[in-house]
Order: sequence, then C-alpha cells, then structure tokens
Amino acid sequence: MEKSGWSELELIKLFADCGRGDDSSGLIKGIGDDCAVFENLSGSDWVTTTDILVERVHFDRSWHPPRLLGRKSVAVNLSDVAAMGGVPRYALVSIALPPTIEHQWISEWHRGVMEMLGAHKCVLIGGDTATSEVLTINVVVIGSVTTAHALMRSSAQVGENIYVSGTLGSAGAGLEICRNEDLFSSIDETCLAPLRRQHLDPEPEVALGKLLGRSSMVGAMQDLSDGLATDIAHIAEQSGVGAEIDAAALPAADGLEPVCRILGTPVASMQVSGGEDYKLVFTVKKQKDAELISVIRECGMEPVHRIGRIVADPGVRLKVGSKWQDISFQGYEHRG
Amino acid sequence: MEKSGWSELELIKLFADCGRGDDSSGLIKGIGDDCAVFENLSGSDWVTTTDILVERVHFDRSWHPPRLLGRKSVAVNLSDVAAMGGVPRYALVSIALPPTIEHQWISEWHRGVMEMLGAHKCVLIGGDTATSEVLTINVVVIGSVTTAHALMRSSAQVGENIYVSGTLGSAGAGLEICRNEDLFSSIDETCLAPLRRQHLDPEPEVALGKLLGRSSMVGAMQDLSDGLATDIAHIAEQSGVGAEIDAAALPAADGLEPVCRILGTPVASMQVSGGEDYKLVFTVKKQKDAELISVIRECGMEPVHRIGRIVADPGVRLKVGSKWQDISFQGYEHRG
Repeated sequence: MEKSGWSELELIKLFADCGRGDDSSGLIKGIGDDCAVFENLSGSDWVTTTDILVERVHFDRSWHPPRLLGRKSVAVNLSDVAAMGGVPRYALVSIALPPTIEHQWISEWHRGVMEMLGAHKCVLIGGDTATSEVLTINVVVIGSVTTAHALMRSSAQVGENIYVSGTLGSAGAGLEICRNEDLFSSIDETCLAPLRRQHLDPEPEVALGKLLGRSSMVGAMQDLSDGLATDIAHIAEQSGVGAEIDAAALPAADGLEPVCRILGTPVASMQVSGGEDYKLVFTVKKQKDAELISVIRECGMEPVHRIGRIVADPGVRLKVGSKWQDISFQGYEHRG
Repeated sequence: MEKSGWSELELIKLFADCGRGDDSSGLIKGIGDDCAVFENLSGSDWVTTTDILVERVHFDRSWHPPRLLGRKSVAVNLSDVAAMGGVPRYALVSIALPPTIEHQWISEWHRGVMEMLGAHKCVLIGGDTATSEVLTINVVVIGSVTTAHALMRSSAQVGENIYVSGTLGSAGAGLEICRNEDLFSSIDETCLAPLRRQHLDPEPEVALGKLLGRSSMVGAMQDLSDGLATDIAHIAEQSGVGAEIDAAALPAADGLEPVCRILGTPVASMQVSGGEDYKLVFTVKKQKDAELISVIRECGMEPVHRIGRIVADPGVRLKVGSKWQDISFQGYEHRG
C-alpha cells in the first residue's frame, strides 16, 4: 500500500478547484478567504445542520469504500435539510486524516463528496483539514426554505396519519451484512445488495422533502437517522402528542426477512430500531391524505407508506399482531 | 479522577438549554430539530467559516484548561469573521469525546464555549456529539456583513501601508512556555503571563474587525492564524502584489525577547513565523491612514501598528537591519 505524505496544502488545493458555484448560486466568495460569503435569498429563511463522523464509531474504513463514504458524509446532512422541507445550497466539509492514509483514499472520498454535492446543486464553500490518528469528518450544510415554511418536529396534531418515504430497517440490516458477509452467504445477492447499499450509500430524500415543504399539507417531519422508534418519539414529544404505529404496515425490502432470521432479530425490531435509513417520517394534515398522495404520484415520485397515526396519549406504541408495546426512544445508538 | 460515563443525550441536554437567542437574533429555531432555522437579515450578506481542532495536533489537554480551550474553540472562528469585517451571529459546535473523559472537563469546556459566544452575542444554534479516542472539536460560525462590504484578501493595492492590530509572536512564545514551563523559570511571571494567555485564551478582534469593515478605508484584511509570513503572503498572492515588512516595526510583548533568547530563536522569526496570534493584518487605502487611526482612537480601541507596505514586486520580504530576506509562506504549521 502506497504511503502518501499528503500535505494540508495539497488537500486545500484539491478542494479549492471546486466551490465556485454558478451565477445563480448567490455565492460571492467560496474557498480561499477567511470566510465564505453569500447573499441573502429573497423570500427564504435559512436552515443549517452539521454531523460529525468518527472512524470505528460511525463507519469502518475496512469495508466502506471511500467514494461511498464521501457521498454518505454529505448525504446525512442533506437528509436533515430535506427533513425541514429545505433546499440545500452550501456545504462546509472538514476532515482530519491519519498521516499514513493513501492518496487514493483521499481522492476517492473527495470524488464522492463532490458527486453528492453536485447531484443536489449544493456548492462547497469552505472547510478545514487536519491530521488525526482517528479519521474524522465534519460536514455542515446550509439550505433555504420558503419564509415561515420550515417543517418542524413540533407541529404534529392528534388525528394526523403518519407516513414514511421508503423501506425501514434496510440500513440496519445492511450494516450487519457489511460487518459479517460470511454469515449471509446463503442469501441471494439480489436481496443483499439493496440492504448493503442503504447502509453504505444512502440517497437523501431532497426532492421529496422540497415537495412536502411546499405542499402545505404536512404537519411535522423529520428524517430517519436514529431509527423510527426514536425519531417518531421526537415528533411526539415536541408536539405534545403520542404515536401509534402498526408493525404490519411498516414497509420492508425483500431481503430484510431472511437477514433478520439469520440474526435472530424480529423484523419489526430491525425496522423500528435500526438506524440510518435516511427516509422521511412525516404526518399529513387531516383530510389531506388523498390529495398529497396524488401530488406525489403526479410528480413521478415513489409512493409513501402510511404506518400509523398521531394520538393524544403521550409515548410511542407499536402494534405487533394484537399486542401493543412501548417503543419510545428505542432506536439505534452508535457504538462506542 | 472521576470517570464519567457521559452519554450523548446528556451532552445534548447541556447544549439544548442554550441557543434560544433574543427576539432580535433572527433565530426561528435553535437546537432540537433536524436543522436550525434563521431569517434573512436585510442589507447584509452572510459570511461563514469552520475550524477543526484535534487533540495533540492543535491543543494539549494536559496543560490547556478546558474552559480556556472552550473559549479558544470559538475564538478562532470569531477571528475569521472579524477578518471579513463581519459580525458573528450563529455558531454550530461539535465535539467528539473519549469515553473516559471527566464530567468536570466537559462542563468547564462547555462553560468556555458559552462565555466566548455570549461575549460576542453569537447564538449557539446547533452541533453534534460523538465518541472518539481522539478529542476533536469542530466549530462553525455564521456572521453577517454589510452587503458588498466583506473585506477580502484579494483587494490590496500597491502603495497601501500594512498594519497589525497587536503584538506578534506572543502566542508562539506562549506555546513554548506551556510546553516546557521549567525552561523559563528565570523570567518574571508578569512577562510570561501575557504570552501564555495569548496561546491559551486569545481574544478575537471582533469589535475592531467590525469597525474596519464599516470604515470603507481598508484595502485587504485577514486574521493572523498561520503566522504573519504566511498570512500576508495570502494577501499578496491573491491581490497580485508583493509586501515589504520592516522587522524593526513589528510590535512585541515585553516578555518576547527574553523567551526568544532562551529558545535561541531570533525575535523577528518568532514574530513572522509563530502562529495563532489571532490579530488582524490589513492594508489601509492610500491617504486614509491618518483618518483611520483617528477613528480607531476615537472609538477607544487599542492603537494599530504600521509594519510595512504593499509593493508591485510579488512575494513577501522582511527587512532585518539593512538586509532583506524572502519570508513568503514561512509561517507556522501545526504538528503531526
């Protein structure tokens, strides 16, 4: 394996070639000064979020391809912007790297970062680089949202139905597959691949988030990062309501059942406690379900799935068969 | 020493009690949702910057008091905003902590962060926490600047004089003192204390930066983080000009000479190559020197020091005695 002796200056140059944006981006100055400078955007508020990713806690370099890790470093932040109904505009990307890391790793990771930013017209405007024995990534995304239209966690109302935008538990199952491929060799690769990809290379729901933000038909929304049990509990708690989820209604990828069987984990547990699906969970205002579902279909987007409803009684309950169980905050916690 | 077993939730709660801002802050939603949300600010552009601080590369926990490290984590970013002529508004603070760290350390560090933010009316609106074997801090500051008035590095003009806002080399000398106190026991504590403090607890030049930004009398500006030799080289390179600095004009704290004598380092070397002074270096538009100096005095601020001038010939040259030497980019690089 090639040793790099990468220098901070080299890395800064790698990034400095990007981040200029086009004329419509509102960017006045990108990378290369003390600060990046950008204009106000008429008719909008700003949203901003940050995630820190630490090697061996949030990712494992031994099986996470650097390009996909670059994409995911950005995607997890884009997902937060999507969850506000926002449009990503600018990103700041910082990385602390072990001195021994290969050039190839850095350039692949960087390629992934730029791919994910580019796909969502999000302009890299700053960041920082450093040396560290533990590879650490910090990304910030700044987005815009129509003035006074940010979709908060705190606005769910009793009687609203709860929806998710895709399958649940896939990323949690994918993580188990990546950790121990041999365990799942009896399962067909066409079943394993989508689960693995959901962990390694999640696609943030930016287009759907934007549509839901503009629809005026959504009550509360957030993204699924810590597992449904925890994420819906945030909505319930902050809205002063409760949530009832029907396990039978939770959408699952084809491979989830055989993987869970090998793990000895109930499918529903993986779906409510597995983290990092980066789908959206949201409530729909009363009597708006049919209209919203029709708008989503007309826009050519994947259908969303009704999984439960908002109730007055606090807490989050899951119905499995005919039994109810309390699952509030029973989500995923990163190791370590 | 008490072991903590701190939890992420506990840390989030520590931070969640802050960050609400007052009515004038433009903050719509602080910590507690997927993103923070803030309003446009009429008549302003936005500036933003980020710094990643890694244990044993950027700071040493064995002698850096946590409260002062918290202050400095924020200060280095406020300094970048000051260098654009901006006003700090919002901050995102992330920290990855070893699982064994003491509660006391975290709460002292947090106190320092909030002190420094509070002193500059900068509102904490987000962040992230994680576990890591290497203590790592990432801070982002978002500030505002009068529309089209951000002070770039690229606007220095031939014939302008170069100024700095305080003593140079103090932080570099302070770092040496912190690393090896015994070496300097012959020097009076009244000489050592200001140097040590300049490294441990630098005060960002926010008020001066704001005044200079609004004065319309400054050409180019940046903050002194990598040492004058590198920082002024950025201004020269980006402005397509050169800089001549007079070593005899570089302001020094009282303790600098005796400390440098013990280190065997020429005073001028420490002044141009020692990093992290977090003063401002700027050029003053032609024929505006007297007026600007008078405005600074009238505002009750510390006097600034003329140290050289912008010339057509590229590069940065330092005059020591009657000899010139090239010092372009001969600044400080963090260890590791």
